[in-house]
Amino acid sequence: MIRSDLTICAPASGSGGAISVIRVSGKDAFEIVSKVFFPSDNTVNILTISGFRVVYGEIRSGDEVIDEVLVSIFRSPHSYTGENSAEISCHASPYIVKSILELLIKNGASAARPGEFTQRAFLNGQLDLSQAEAVADVISSSSGVAHKIAMNQLRGGFSGEISNLRAELLNFASLIELELDFGEEDVEFADRGDLKAIIVRVKNLTDRLSESFSLGNALKNGIPVVIVGKPNSGKSTLLNVLLQDDKAIVSDIPGTTRDTIEDTIVIDGIEYRFIDTAGLRETTDVIESLGIRKTFEKIAQASVILLVDEITDSPDQINGRIKAIREKIDGTDKKLIILINKSDTSDYNLQGELSKRINREAGEELLFISAKEKAGLDGLRSILSESIAVSGSSLENVMVTNARHYEALCKVSVSLGRVLNGLEENITEELIATDIRQAIHYLGEITGEITSDEILGNIFRNFCIGK
Amino acid sequence: MIRSDLTICAPASGSGGAISVIRVSGKDAFEIVSKVFFPSDNTVNILTISGFRVVYGEIRSGDEVIDEVLVSIFRSPHSYTGENSAEISCHASPYIVKSILELLIKNGASAARPGEFTQRAFLNGQLDLSQAEAVADVISSSSGVAHKIAMNQLRGGFSGEISNLRAELLNFASLIELELDFGEEDVEFADRGDLKAIIVRVKNLTDRLSESFSLGNALKNGIPVVIVGKPNSGKSTLLNVLLQDDKAIVSDIPGTTRDTIEDTIVIDGIEYRFIDTAGLRETTDVIESLGIRKTFEKIAQASVILLVDEITDSPDQINGRIKAIREKIDGTDKKLIILINKSDTSDYNLQGELSKRINREAGEELLFISAKEKAGLDGLRSILSESIAVSGSSLENVMVTNARHYEALCKVSVSLGRVLNGLEENITEELIATDIRQAIHYLGEITGEITSDEILGNIFRNFCIGK
Repeated sequence: MIRSDLTICAPASGSGGAISVIRVSGKDAFEIVSKVFFPSDNTVNILTISGFRVVYGEIRSGDEVIDEVLVSIFRSPHSYTGENSAEISCHASPYIVKSILELLIKNGASAARPGEFTQRAFLNGQLDLSQAEAVADVISSSSGVAHKIAMNQLRGGFSGEISNLRAELLNFASLIELELDFGEEDVEFADRGDLKAIIVRVKNLTDRLSESFSLGNALKNGIPVVIVGKPNSGKSTLLNVLLQDDKAIVSDIPGTTRDTIEDTIVIDGIEYRFIDTAGLRETTDVIESLGIRKTFEKIAQASVILLVDEITDSPDQINGRIKAIREKIDGTDKKLIILINKSDTSDYNLQGELSKRINREAGEELLFISAKEKAGLDGLRSILSESIAVSGSSLENVMVTNARHYEALCKVSVSLGRVLNGLEENITEELIATDIRQAIHYLGEITGEITSDEILGNIFRNFCIGK
Repeated sequence: MIRSDLTICAPASGSGGAISVIRVSGKDAFEIVSKVFFPSDNTVNILTISGFRVVYGEIRSGDEVIDEVLVSIFRSPHSYTGENSAEISCHASPYIVKSILELLIKNGASAARPGEFTQRAFLNGQLDLSQAEAVADVISSSSGVAHKIAMNQLRGGFSGEISNLRAELLNFASLIELELDFGEEDVEFADRGDLKAIIVRVKNLTDRLSESFSLGNALKNGIPVVIVGKPNSGKSTLLNVLLQDDKAIVSDIPGTTRDTIEDTIVIDGIEYRFIDTAGLRETTDVIESLGIRKTFEKIAQASVILLVDEITDSPDQINGRIKAIREKIDGTDKKLIILINKSDTSDYNLQGELSKRINREAGEELLFISAKEKAGLDGLRSILSESIAVSGSSLENVMVTNARHYEALCKVSVSLGRVLNGLEENITEELIATDIRQAIHYLGEITGEITSDEILGNIFRNFCIGK
């Protein structure tokens, strides 16, 4: 659907607050705005004023003043969309926002669809497709690490990696196609060993990117954590204390709060998402009545398992629970952290004895805490941070966080695997060239060199209006 | 508390959306922003750039890019607060907003208090006090009429009226004080009859303003409406149909919805607020079990009463209910609208008979509706609009919507009443002058010529942060 001849408008800021921003973009943006906006300095003409200027004045509907506003002018191509654009900054009243949008629409603008501003930015070459997708990730990121990954993607870090891979493959393809051009002459312009080395290197890079998806996706959406243990071991107290502490940190600047539907906390810039805490939010361990099968289902979804035992449990009981969990998670990269709660009711000798015995018999380390007394929680936070292998250096590298990109990279890898087989088994250049073209195609899908209305529709449908 | 030496910052736009705006204002605004904001065109210097310019660049914390933003520059006195101000337009991520605020605070800014930007605008003479109060009203107005009244107040219409009254009284006072200056000489510079005429005129204007408070306040907060009637007459269906219709009208532009905690609808720009609908929102008329006393309590709070009868009710039953309500509301300006519901189950003859009889016996008009079939609702909307005496011309006049202003005007009226008595009874100029000075004082409280930390504290405490 071509709508690029339309000038679109939508609220761009959220609800509430003191001011709201309405975005207008398209070839008639200035003409439409000039019909409803009257600068207080009537020598100013927004049709001719240069870009990056702000103009104060009134939005009027006939004689009625709808609001006193600031209008910022951005001239094509120096705007978010690449088109002529205006941003109207008005008082944050739903009535005013609706009135101004109605006025703009009456004067020729169309209501923007979700993500349409960013889609235009992509179509006008301001952003590639993976950068456009990063806009949504930047906005939704709620931890330092997720923000850093999204911002790197927005700024073209990920696109750069993909372009490099694609350039190497295009180079390879040109050599193969050259051989094809010579047809029957059976020339080889490149040594098969050298070609193979290129493909191995590109495939390794592709696979490294694909492998980063598991962690990248968890960092973007929050590392899934479960709290398990016998009833009344203090799981709900622990959860509540961790959530309250985090909430206090987040809201220490007036006017900023984090809206979370899920139970999440942020430690050292990494978000942890507690899964299946419906029962734990209550003060009683209702969920435990669902039994061991339910516990194993929760463990299956988690990256980190917090096992909460009590200081009064016998070493055999603790060992038994550790063994049951270990059997389920061995061979995975799930991390088990064993907490001994209610440590305030014991002395250090007892704790030392228990530590030694569990360490000897199960090879595990214990962390003594008191959820009630908020003791040992910093230790827990440290161990959580250490359990996620995000070193500074690995964050400097590019991470895949988007399922669409991951799927494309997997297809690239399969195609390159076939190329390697082909080179190994001296298959014809035609077949090798076909697989190479496929790999190049899938890389192009990520950055949007190759795209379709369907792909674009799927991507931008999930954006907000005004984005 | 003097904070004017501080540079303040706060989020100014709401939560959600695509972009967020952070406001910075104060003498060091540009210096602080320049420490964290790096224009992409490095020849641009925000310390020296002229006002009303937008600059694109990066917010950085050390080497880390927090966001790519637009910064708008406003130079004193040409800004909202009258101080040097900057507005940072960033991606609408709570993480980014919090990070930028933290950076600004680390570099010398302070977190703004609720309403502090508007308070500074008042203290710097950009707005008078009643205009500052109108800022909050403009933002919260959710109907066309409420918006129009608030916008008129923001633009100084109300302040103008008050200033005119004050000027007349100051003129009067100067004549009286002149006589006082001549002390024992017993001269009269103004004819007592002329003086009385001035005070009568000013008092009449003051009283007219005071009297507009009842309607003005209802228009601002929504006209209170109750729905009463016997169980199962269809009250809940009627309420739900009215609310749904209104919701459909409000949300016809994507991205705009009205958040209402209360049950409100807007007809012809006027908001109606259904009071005490907790029981009606349920499909059963639970509330009716509370009986007739509860109904009368609801009627006492309302300006408009919708009595819902059924077509199958006998004329005597209907007359009985009308009589009971009329006894409670006669002598007030409450409006009663009598609805005969389920009219779809009857023919016009029956309706005509009933109309004639009720009209003859109770002197009331009936409106036949079918809430279930959505019939007669436009008629109901017309009658509701007519029941509120807001003609276009009365809206051109100034209305009082603020309880603080109303109280001050009442005190002005009392003082002027004493002046009139004094003139009548030939009381000494000293006493008359005292009462005049009081009236001038109370008028000055409205616009803020006379103010105190306590008054300012009370007013701005209720503002949002960022306003």
